[in-house]
Amino acid sequence: MSFFCFFDIMNKSQGRDSMKIKYNLLKTEKNTKARFGTIKTNYGTYETPMFMPVGTKATVKSLSKEELKAAHAGIILSNTYHLWLRPGPDVIAHCGGLHKFMSWDGPILTDSGGFQVFSLAKNKKKDITEEGVHFKSHIDGQNLFLTPEKSIEIQNKLDSDIAMSFDECPPASASYEYLKNSIERTIRWAKRGKAVHNNPNQALFGIVQGGAHEDLRKYSAEETVKLDFDGYSIGGVANDGESKEDMYKAIDYSIPYLPENKVRYLMGVGEPVDIIEGVIRGVDIFDCVLPTRIARHGQAFTRDGKINLNNAKYKEDLSPVEEGCDCYTCRNYSKAYIRHLITTGEMLGGRLLSIHNIRFLIKLTEELREAIKNDNILEYRKNFLERYEKK
Amino acid sequence: MSFFCFFDIMNKSQGRDSMKIKYNLLKTEKNTKARFGTIKTNYGTYETPMFMPVGTKATVKSLSKEELKAAHAGIILSNTYHLWLRPGPDVIAHCGGLHKFMSWDGPILTDSGGFQVFSLAKNKKKDITEEGVHFKSHIDGQNLFLTPEKSIEIQNKLDSDIAMSFDECPPASASYEYLKNSIERTIRWAKRGKAVHNNPNQALFGIVQGGAHEDLRKYSAEETVKLDFDGYSIGGVANDGESKEDMYKAIDYSIPYLPENKVRYLMGVGEPVDIIEGVIRGVDIFDCVLPTRIARHGQAFTRDGKINLNNAKYKEDLSPVEEGCDCYTCRNYSKAYIRHLITTGEMLGGRLLSIHNIRFLIKLTEELREAIKNDNILEYRKNFLERYEKK
Repeated sequence: MSFFCFFDIMNKSQGRDSMKIKYNLLKTEKNTKARFGTIKTNYGTYETPMFMPVGTKATVKSLSKEELKAAHAGIILSNTYHLWLRPGPDVIAHCGGLHKFMSWDGPILTDSGGFQVFSLAKNKKKDITEEGVHFKSHIDGQNLFLTPEKSIEIQNKLDSDIAMSFDECPPASASYEYLKNSIERTIRWAKRGKAVHNNPNQALFGIVQGGAHEDLRKYSAEETVKLDFDGYSIGGVANDGESKEDMYKAIDYSIPYLPENKVRYLMGVGEPVDIIEGVIRGVDIFDCVLPTRIARHGQAFTRDGKINLNNAKYKEDLSPVEEGCDCYTCRNYSKAYIRHLITTGEMLGGRLLSIHNIRFLIKLTEELREAIKNDNILEYRKNFLERYEKK
Repeated sequence: MSFFCFFDIMNKSQGRDSMKIKYNLLKTEKNTKARFGTIKTNYGTYETPMFMPVGTKATVKSLSKEELKAAHAGIILSNTYHLWLRPGPDVIAHCGGLHKFMSWDGPILTDSGGFQVFSLAKNKKKDITEEGVHFKSHIDGQNLFLTPEKSIEIQNKLDSDIAMSFDECPPASASYEYLKNSIERTIRWAKRGKAVHNNPNQALFGIVQGGAHEDLRKYSAEETVKLDFDGYSIGGVANDGESKEDMYKAIDYSIPYLPENKVRYLMGVGEPVDIIEGVIRGVDIFDCVLPTRIARHGQAFTRDGKINLNNAKYKEDLSPVEEGCDCYTCRNYSKAYIRHLITTGEMLGGRLLSIHNIRFLIKLTEELREAIKNDNILEYRKNFLERYEKK
């Protein structure tokens, strides 16, 4: 098997542009820290700010690659923890890496598995040691052990375009003292991961932690940047119970210490309002399961706030989910039909709303780019929020 | 609400060809009763023999209309019983009829609800009277009453292109005496339905019953044909426990009494072997939930028989579900990836296999048409079965 992995990765590096990602800052908005730029990847160049749809198990739930492209998706995200368990990194390497496995010819970012270890571990019991984390599989309860080296080794095999360092994701309730020790360990883990990283086509990002504490964020950012990663993410803002206020603080306290010429990634954030606030604070890329998860429950983003298609008032509503939306769903189907699909448990319902919700967030980032170019992002935020939060 | 119905149906009849379907027999195969022909519908002309995918609740499970068109689907089938319960015929009429409701610009056949009443009624308890059938909803147990008139009234509102007469669907175990009385009633029901049918764009088919009894089939066919329907279906072959032998007898005993210039429809049949046998016996159109149902359980039709993608042997299999298949799934994805989707419960798995399975059955009918044109359908059957049933 290891022969196949090596062989496939080598083959692949000849078939595509062999490079790590390159961020290019094109403009900073006049009144804020919002940035317009591009990320050059192995699979094309994409503008930022950008929203990355999440394909946990090598599939953005229910959608085809064509639907993702039609929604103007750029980078998509996949989860190392889930792919480690099923089908396993060796199977994916045998199939030529994650791109070939899932037939996606766009860029892919894989997370480190860290967040899932802390959020999905069976009964959330885990034993964190300096070496790594012992925990039980959420599928069958088997004992698992994930280390910084193991996480990177898996991601190397998955052959994603961007890998993430393995970090601890402490809950919002963690004490200052706990967070301080946790940051130190996460930095040591980042070093260990970087030391074993061994895929010439794959960028590696460091992760800044530190809760809502200014000094901890500064320390974490500075020490992580010293390790010279290809990009940086701000973690610990969407773990477990963080307030919006703490999220904005975490961004504000981290951004000043991150280099201008590297991508900044706010992990796990996908509420429209938070994307706008993140962009204004200098974040470039976002990911979240929200658009697909709420879709499966019948909810849709609209300019006038979130709506729930289960609501009886849509029973005979011939209008699209959102007037004027350019997505496939809104161009072809009525609320009445989608409500019927959702209330009768038909899969097409979640699929159609996923298409709309993903397109909604991507469209939002497209508009934010325009607002940055036009130096009117604060006005954009005001107008957006007035309408979105009206009801 | 009734104003809306009327208004929408009137509108629609101006927007499309206002006609009932027209069958055109082009060739009968030299050695068998197999027929090649066309059906002209309100939404285009299609060649027969034809397989009709089933969209029970106004959706062919998980698929988009574009995927159905890409699989070369012609007529699709939708279930009157399910749509009667949810969202209700008035909602669909308000939305401009079933085509507009589900955004399908191809022809639609609706069944009568008869089969569902007999197979889905809660606890399968039902009270059959001359007037109609009393039974309980499979969703919430509420008391329901379906009559021949009600079935046609619902189908008129749904505005499908082909409506079916309301019939009794007795089980295979029914006695000769029971069947005889049942046929008489079904003929009376057919008359009553025809008397109230009132949609100028909708064809109405009669249904031949009679189990595997030669005299009953003859009687049922002759009496039904006397009522002069736009097409005829052979029912009671896929209800509950019928053997293949009985199915073939039912066809053989019915076909001689059906007019040459009308479509012949074998209800609920979708096993490849049975489609071939049906075509050879003179059947034109087929429907079945099989291709989408087995897809959701990980099964796929191939030339070499049915395969189950849950099987561990496909874990690293880079080949498509079926070599040489022209469907979207086979052109884009490996067995290894689809197995991963199926075993991890990802919706895309069932969707991809549904696309393949529907295309498989449609491709089969395309090949049967060629075999009829070439007068070699018996050879085609021999070659198909040798390979399909080898393992």
